[in-house]
Amino acid sequence: MDDEPRTEILNATYRALCEHGYADLSLRDIADESDLSKASIHYHFESKRDLFAAFLDHLFEEYAERVDAAVGETPREDLLTLLDALLADEDTPDTEFRTAILEMKAQAPYDDHVRARFAEFDELLYDRLRETIAAGVETGEFDESVQPVLAAEFLTTAVQGARMRGVTVGHPMDRFRETVTRYVETYLDGADGAEGTDEADAAEVAH
Amino acid sequence: MDDEPRTEILNATYRALCEHGYADLSLRDIADESDLSKASIHYHFESKRDLFAAFLDHLFEEYAERVDAAVGETPREDLLTLLDALLADEDTPDTEFRTAILEMKAQAPYDDHVRARFAEFDELLYDRLRETIAAGVETGEFDESVQPVLAAEFLTTAVQGARMRGVTVGHPMDRFRETVTRYVETYLDGADGAEGTDEADAAEVAH
Repeated sequence: MDDEPRTEILNATYRALCEHGYADLSLRDIADESDLSKASIHYHFESKRDLFAAFLDHLFEEYAERVDAAVGETPREDLLTLLDALLADEDTPDTEFRTAILEMKAQAPYDDHVRARFAEFDELLYDRLRETIAAGVETGEFDESVQPVLAAEFLTTAVQGARMRGVTVGHPMDRFRETVTRYVETYLDGADGAEGTDEADAAEVAH
Repeated sequence: MDDEPRTEILNATYRALCEHGYADLSLRDIADESDLSKASIHYHFESKRDLFAAFLDHLFEEYAERVDAAVGETPREDLLTLLDALLADEDTPDTEFRTAILEMKAQAPYDDHVRARFAEFDELLYDRLRETIAAGVETGEFDESVQPVLAAEFLTTAVQGARMRGVTVGHPMDRFRETVTRYVETYLDGADGAEGTDEADAAEVAH
């Protein structure tokens, strides 16, 4: 691991965040999770702030890859695959890490770099949702009355809310996945969806 | 103010949270925002934890009053009034306070009392949304295919997401208000809403 000390430090940061949370995390805690000394962490990152900036950059790359990898055969499948990937309990980080991320988000207003980074996460998701929905309207899979800008805004907001409720009140993600599938079926697919036997449809797609 | 020292302390807590945020807030900071000494705060609240528990109880009462006060002539108006009240920038606390609340939420997983309190906020909103939507389905204002449980789940999640995006990336609440109005018009009102001139409708109701 000596040739990749930065990666080693970022991995240790992940483990330390899961273990201790973000609020009181020290470079000492991070060193304890790695084979490196506090001094060698300082050699690679001038400050805790620098380290967290690099950590957020690293997370952003992973997130962008995950969003890019979620593709389906058609825009509608694309959208459902993406939402599944974003809301899957098993594929995404565990509760401890989600909690640490929420702590970092709560600090965003106090730190311009952190805020700018989280804004990028937000935009990436919004842009991808908007493009996918627009493609679905284009192919006729989604109702022609759907406005991609508004629908993407709503879904971006709801996905963020689902993550927060998952962390703060332990609300199950599956429950939300069912409702979001129903949204795609009725709101985006148009009037036809609204006339089906909704309970069965929603349950089917949500598993 | 001597006859209401607890209220005075809770008001000082509000100001101190806006000024300093939640993470590093001390009883000293709270005393500095009031006419009371740190010792007399200790007389009323055994610990910082007790004080914040009482503060959350106080916030919950205010929130419940706000939710109860948002009523319209019909279930549909009721719903739009409630969403407006929840998403109005001018009526709700300012950014500093929202930020402090998000910090407290991020600590919820570490504190059972805080978590239980936030779960009550969540349930209060969910129950009220569900009842209102169910009433609208009953009167025929909302489409008969609407499932109050799923729609309330979706709206509760989206409202929480809107608050978080407002704090973490400074996303304007108005933008979300437009999309949520559109959701009520198309998803809940049924197929008729989906056929209108959507842009105009959404813009009209959002202001």
